[in-house]
Amino acid sequence: MDTHNRVLSIQSHVCSGYVGNRAATFPLQLLGYDVDVVNTVQFSNHSGYGRLKGTRTDADQLGSILLGLEENGLLRMGRLLTGYVPGAAALMVVADLARKLRARNPELIYLLDPVMGDDNKIYVAPECVPIYKDLLDCATIITPNWFEVELLTGVKLDSPAAIQEALRILHVQHGVPHVVISSLLPTPEISASLPPSTRGDLQPNGVSSSSPYAGDTQLVVCSSLLPEAERSGGSVSIVHVGNVKRIRGYFSGVGDLFSALVLAHFPSPSDPPPQEPDTPLSRATALATSSVQGILVSTHHYVQSLPEAERPETDQELDLKDAERRVMRMRARELRLIQGKDYILNPGQEGKGEGRMIRWDGFWNSEEGERAGRFSQGG
Amino acid sequence: MDTHNRVLSIQSHVCSGYVGNRAATFPLQLLGYDVDVVNTVQFSNHSGYGRLKGTRTDADQLGSILLGLEENGLLRMGRLLTGYVPGAAALMVVADLARKLRARNPELIYLLDPVMGDDNKIYVAPECVPIYKDLLDCATIITPNWFEVELLTGVKLDSPAAIQEALRILHVQHGVPHVVISSLLPTPEISASLPPSTRGDLQPNGVSSSSPYAGDTQLVVCSSLLPEAERSGGSVSIVHVGNVKRIRGYFSGVGDLFSALVLAHFPSPSDPPPQEPDTPLSRATALATSSVQGILVSTHHYVQSLPEAERPETDQELDLKDAERRVMRMRARELRLIQGKDYILNPGQEGKGEGRMIRWDGFWNSEEGERAGRFSQGG
Repeated sequence: MDTHNRVLSIQSHVCSGYVGNRAATFPLQLLGYDVDVVNTVQFSNHSGYGRLKGTRTDADQLGSILLGLEENGLLRMGRLLTGYVPGAAALMVVADLARKLRARNPELIYLLDPVMGDDNKIYVAPECVPIYKDLLDCATIITPNWFEVELLTGVKLDSPAAIQEALRILHVQHGVPHVVISSLLPTPEISASLPPSTRGDLQPNGVSSSSPYAGDTQLVVCSSLLPEAERSGGSVSIVHVGNVKRIRGYFSGVGDLFSALVLAHFPSPSDPPPQEPDTPLSRATALATSSVQGILVSTHHYVQSLPEAERPETDQELDLKDAERRVMRMRARELRLIQGKDYILNPGQEGKGEGRMIRWDGFWNSEEGERAGRFSQGG
Repeated sequence: MDTHNRVLSIQSHVCSGYVGNRAATFPLQLLGYDVDVVNTVQFSNHSGYGRLKGTRTDADQLGSILLGLEENGLLRMGRLLTGYVPGAAALMVVADLARKLRARNPELIYLLDPVMGDDNKIYVAPECVPIYKDLLDCATIITPNWFEVELLTGVKLDSPAAIQEALRILHVQHGVPHVVISSLLPTPEISASLPPSTRGDLQPNGVSSSSPYAGDTQLVVCSSLLPEAERSGGSVSIVHVGNVKRIRGYFSGVGDLFSALVLAHFPSPSDPPPQEPDTPLSRATALATSSVQGILVSTHHYVQSLPEAERPETDQELDLKDAERRVMRMRARELRLIQGKDYILNPGQEGKGEGRMIRWDGFWNSEEGERAGRFSQGG
C-alpha cells in the first residue's frame, strides 16, 4: 500500500451538493490520492437549505467502523484529514484515532480543520472547543478561519500584535507546526502593516454589477514553524499573506474544499522543498487558494447564467416567508466542483495569480523586535 | 440545474477500497457528471475481506433521505444508477423511487444493475429476485452477469438459442430496451456461432506466468431494441459481442465500475448517434470494457510489484487457517481506480482494442431465421 498517497478523510456526507467529504474527496482523488472516506453523517443536503433529512453516525458506529479498518490493516495512511464532526462524543472518537495514528507514525501529515463556526457564530456543541484545543498538539497543519482562531486562542484578531499573539499560542503553547488562517478581514491597522506588494490589492476596486467580486478582500495568512539552523533547538516562524478578492454571496463547502487542497499540495518529507521565499505551507496555500477562487468565480458565472427566478438574492425576510426561495438559492450556488476540475489540476494557470502568497517579512518585527518570531523549544 | 449531466447513484459505501458507489462515483465525476450519492450501507471495507464493520441504511432511513432530496427539488437528475441494495425492504424503496422518476421523466436514462449474485451463488435475500423482475420495465439499460440473466429469465445460457430466448424475455416480456450481459463463459456451441472476426480471439493464447491473463476469455454481449423504420410499431434487436481476456484472480467492484462507465458513455437523446455498425449501447459497452480492462491489468501489475508475502495467492484452505492471508490478498487487489484515471478519460487509447464490440450479424438467424430479432409491439 502506498501510504504517502493515501488519505483518511473523516467528515460529513451529503447525497447532493458539495460540503464535507463531498467537497474534499474528488479534488484529492483528482490529484492522485487514494482517499479512504469515513462519513460522520449522511444527510440529503447541507444545512444551508433550511431543511434536510438523514442520519448521523454516532460515536459507537464511528468507533466500530474504525475498528473494522484497523482489523483489516487499513489504517496505514500517510495523511489524515478531519473536518466537521457533530457532537463531542463522536469528536472524541476521532481525536483518539488521530492520537493513535500520530503515535504510530511521527511522519503522519495530519490536517486538522477545527470546524466550529464562522462569522461569530458557533455551530458545534460547545464541548467540542476544549476537545479541539487538546487535539492541536497532534496536528501537522490546522486551517481555522479567524473566528475559530479566536475560539482556540481567546485572542481577538484585530491587530498585527493580536495575530502574533494568536500564532504564538498555536505554535508554542499547542505545538502546531503549520497554521493557516483561512480567512481574516483586515482592520485598517492590519492593512497598514502588510507587505507593500500586497497592500495595493486591498483598495476597493471599481466593481460592476456583473462582476463576481463583492469589492473587498480578505486575507489568507499562513505561518510555518521551521527549525532554525543557527540556534540548536530553536525554531522560527515564517509568515506569508495573500489577498483574496471576496466573491459576492455565500457558498457552502468552501472551507472544506480549501483544507483538502492544502493537504493535497503539502509535500511529503521526501519531496524537494519549494524555492525561496516560499515554504511548503505557503506554496500549498497559494495553490489551494487559486483553485478555490477559480471554482468560486466559475460558480458565480454559472449562477448568473440561470433564469432570475431560479437564483433569488439573499434576503432573510423574504426567505422566512417563502422557504423555497432559500432552497433555490442553495441549489443554484452549489460549488461547480466537477465542472471545475481544471482549476484543481492546474491551479497556477487557471487561477490567474489569485493565490499569490507574499512572505510577510516585517511581520514579527512590527511590535516586538526582530527575534519575536523565534521560539526556543518548549516555548 | 443541468439534468442531463446529473446522476443519482444508489449503492453501497465502503470507507476503504472500491466497490459500489466507491467504484462508480469517481469515474462518473471524472467524465463530467455531477453525481448525487445515496449510500445504502457504510462498511469499513467490502465483504471479500471476510470481516468488516459498519451499518446499513435501513428502508426508513433511505426513504427519509430521498424525501429530503425531493423536498429540496434535488430529484431532477437525468440519469439514475442503482446497484447492490441489501434486503428486500430497502430495495422496494429504491424501486418506488425509480418508478417515480420514470413517470416524471420519460427520457430518464436508468441503468439498473440487478446485483444478485455471481458464479451460481446468490448473495442477496431471495425476495429481491421478484422485485428486480418487476422493476425491469422501468429500466433503460440493465447490466446483469450471466448468472443474474439466468435468475431473471429462468433460461440457462448454454447455447446461442438460449441467449436468444433470454434476450427475447428481457426485451419483449419485460420491456427492457438495452441489455448488456456483462460476462458470459462461451460454451463450444456459442463459440462456434460467433462472428468470424471475434472467434480467433477465443483460442487459448500462450500465457506466461508473468502475464496478467488467465489464458481464457469471456464474452460481453449487448443487445439494443431499436425502432424498425419499415414496420410501424415494430422493433429490431441489434446484438454486439466482444471477447475479453480474463485476468488472473478475483477483483471486487469490477461490475460496479463497468455499470457506471456504461452509463457514463451512453449518450443523451440529443447527442449524435454513433457510426454504423455501432449502436449507442455497443459503443458505451466497448468504452467501458476498455477502461475496466486497463484498470484490471494495471491492478495486476501493481499486485505483482508487491513483496510476495503481501499478496498470497487464492487458497481457501490456507485462508481458513489464517484469516490474515485473505485480508492481505484483498488489500493488495483493490482496484487501482485513482491511479488509473487515464484509462477512464481515454479508454480508446489505453485499452488497446480490448473493448472492441463486433456486430453479431448472424445472431438471430442462427436458429430461427432472419426475422427472429424483430418484435412487434407488445411482444
